[in-house]
Amino acid sequence: MAPLDYGTLGLKALFVKSEGFVLVITINRAKQRNSFGETLPDELIQVFDLADRDDRVRVVVLTAEHTAPAYCSGADISQGWSGLFKPEEKVEGETAHRDSGGQVTLAIYKCRKLTIAAVNGHAVGVGMTALQLPFDIRFVWEGAKLAFPFVRRGINPEATSSYLLPRLLGHSRANALLLTGATLNPTSHLISSLYYEIIPKREDVFPAAFALAKELAENTSQLSVAYSKALLQHPGESIEENHLLDSRAIELLASGQDAAEGALAFKERRPPKFPDTLSKNSSPWYPWWRSMDIKHRKAKL
Amino acid sequence: MAPLDYGTLGLKALFVKSEGFVLVITINRAKQRNSFGETLPDELIQVFDLADRDDRVRVVVLTAEHTAPAYCSGADISQGWSGLFKPEEKVEGETAHRDSGGQVTLAIYKCRKLTIAAVNGHAVGVGMTALQLPFDIRFVWEGAKLAFPFVRRGINPEATSSYLLPRLLGHSRANALLLTGATLNPTSHLISSLYYEIIPKREDVFPAAFALAKELAENTSQLSVAYSKALLQHPGESIEENHLLDSRAIELLASGQDAAEGALAFKERRPPKFPDTLSKNSSPWYPWWRSMDIKHRKAKL
Amino acid sequence: MAPLDYGTLGLKALFVKSEGFVLVITINRAKQRNSFGETLPDELIQVFDLADRDDRVRVVVLTAEHTAPAYCSGADISQGWSGLFKPEEKVEGETAHRDSGGQVTLAIYKCRKLTIAAVNGHAVGVGMTALQLPFDIRFVWEGAKLAFPFVRRGINPEATSSYLLPRLLGHSRANALLLTGATLNPTSHLISSLYYEIIPKREDVFPAAFALAKELAENTSQLSVAYSKALLQHPGESIEENHLLDSRAIELLASGQDAAEGALAFKERRPPKFPDTLSKNSSPWYPWWRSMDIKHRKAKL
Repeated sequence: MAPLDYGTLGLKALFVKSEGFVLVITINRAKQRNSFGETLPDELIQVFDLADRDDRVRVVVLTAEHTAPAYCSGADISQGWSGLFKPEEKVEGETAHRDSGGQVTLAIYKCRKLTIAAVNGHAVGVGMTALQLPFDIRFVWEGAKLAFPFVRRGINPEATSSYLLPRLLGHSRANALLLTGATLNPTSHLISSLYYEIIPKREDVFPAAFALAKELAENTSQLSVAYSKALLQHPGESIEENHLLDSRAIELLASGQDAAEGALAFKERRPPKFPDTLSKNSSPWYPWWRSMDIKHRKAKL
Repeated sequence: MAPLDYGTLGLKALFVKSEGFVLVITINRAKQRNSFGETLPDELIQVFDLADRDDRVRVVVLTAEHTAPAYCSGADISQGWSGLFKPEEKVEGETAHRDSGGQVTLAIYKCRKLTIAAVNGHAVGVGMTALQLPFDIRFVWEGAKLAFPFVRRGINPEATSSYLLPRLLGHSRANALLLTGATLNPTSHLISSLYYEIIPKREDVFPAAFALAKELAENTSQLSVAYSKALLQHPGESIEENHLLDSRAIELLASGQDAAEGALAFKERRPPKFPDTLSKNSSPWYPWWRSMDIKHRKAKL
Repeated sequence: MAPLDYGTLGLKALFVKSEGFVLVITINRAKQRNSFGETLPDELIQVFDLADRDDRVRVVVLTAEHTAPAYCSGADISQGWSGLFKPEEKVEGETAHRDSGGQVTLAIYKCRKLTIAAVNGHAVGVGMTALQLPFDIRFVWEGAKLAFPFVRRGINPEATSSYLLPRLLGHSRANALLLTGATLNPTSHLISSLYYEIIPKREDVFPAAFALAKELAENTSQLSVAYSKALLQHPGESIEENHLLDSRAIELLASGQDAAEGALAFKERRPPKFPDTLSKNSSPWYPWWRSMDIKHRKAKL
């Protein structure tokens, strides 16, 4: 594909910058407390879709300005819930709605690159779900207030959080968080295992996340990461099926240039330079799973 | 439905009391070390079934007298195992038995209200499984001896514990607990994440659980809780299916009175007063999943 | 079956010794840094298959010499990846390969006896996956370096680790470990819950594991352990199915000699002597699940 230029996308809610193999996305709605509204959901979907396809990108970091009132303050419900719905959905009935938090979650979850959330501020509702749970790794500010207020507002947890949170933390903690509508700090035993690292100062959260991102971008294989994420998300129905899947992935990857370079660099005790890319070197076998069609029936794409 | 009067049920093994929206169930068999026998299983099934249907109930707390010898000392096997089986099951062969621990577990697990176990004493066998694992939240006394003795008695873990415990804690800890037949304290790293809070004094366990129950009963929506529990228990087969399910739930709930009140109360910075109830305001779509029939083939209901 | 004599197997990579009901397997390749190569994989499969069928064995412990350079240093890739593949697999195409790490994993995972890994040294790659994840319980030396380097070598996690690790620890930690290619110590919050116990000194790891093995061998029922492992590995598709399965297991086990002895020994406050064995006393119902055929199509067995 032709190189992508994120600068020409005309984004309003996001500020996007390439730094080597790392794409840094910063939420740019501090005046709206970084609420999940206006163009933010669609821009996130657009950028993660592009990052997925852009061979130059190996790691994506989502963060906010550390001086903003919040990492993400959730949906703005000061005018009620109607803002969540598009007019045509209301007309077409109860199966027409596609939650925008879930759409953003899926764009992040399906991105084949490493994804890191640098949660350098408070996070509420969809700021806890779509903007954290689908990422591979999460850094967080120790002082952040984290809230799952759904059952205290008369709605239900969204953005596939009832699927993702129990898988990430186990049901003991996930049930407690979602069913009590908890507000808590990252050091609470109920939520601490969601995070790769808990950072004392707000301003240090992004630098820590970016340092890991840079190290991973330089030392991991794009194909390895994509196949590994796929195995974790689609491990097969049984341990036997998983054995067939990871065997086939090994068979394919071990004959590639990245594996040759990986072994050689290890032998020569030097950092690797992985040449393979998803657009050029992925196998037709990948993806090996089927996905359910979740598009709205009038969607154009 | 007509208001239920728990006082007229003629319960022997339980003491049941309504306190506002909270139903408090106390095991009343201290002289039998709160063993899981006689009428206790059937009474638990009866009360959780009623609590499920009683719109006045928003939270159910199960506890014991904190002066009893145990929260629950398990099944009484001083006369061997025959007490576990009903005579007709023995006649009908090996597929006829329905473990009473599992029946109690299912009644608690399927209760659509918030459920809290206040484990203010020792717990053995079915006292660890049926009387703890299906609850949404567990409080425990720090000094409680907790035991899973199945493999040390010649039987297997029951009451669906081989399903629930790995989901709650992950297989690393669940396997260790069930396969070693461990006896341990709540602070052990193998089991501590089962608990919402570990309380130093026995007499403080129920008050802590009740305080949370009361707060939740006053500030959560009955419909939100029921739909959230259902999404956690029946999240769909994939993240895509979960997205369709939580989108449809949001579509339904957001147009209800509870969501309107939730948004308004939040805006007005006051506690909400949620009017919706399961019997009046639930959608025909809910429940969206199919359940396997597990009734004994000669069961009358 | 006739008593098995492990001494006549002609093993080279393993040293195997029976101590009462405990079978101790020691990796015997210190000069090759206990790398996963030559006859080691096939010998592990052979011994775990025998241990599964040998009624005298109740617990299997895998360990290394605590003076060896590593518990297992992983595959030897100094000559590249071709050593992973058999010549006929290369000819037959990309579905022919069966990863040897996965084959070893499955032999350990399917062993119906209690299995304990005593990780008394560093562990890399397949030394973290096949030689740890399929075990029921893991002990580890606090100073061990633990590494999952797959994405840093151009390949993917193997030996069914993308299936087992998330089940053991949850996806939050499993994703972080596998997708960053982490090297870390057992006390890291990302991995500590993989271990039953973390032991300060290398030389104390095996004795601690063996003490637990001996205690379990003497005090647990062989049938109970096998049925419990089966319920944990094959819990059914739903809580209702699990209820039917554990009810049927209880019905079968409670009428056996082990359960009678278990109840009697408990009543008499003495250690049990369990007489039942898998070859004589297991039900035709067990195993109740179907397994996918994963044999290579030209395999002779």
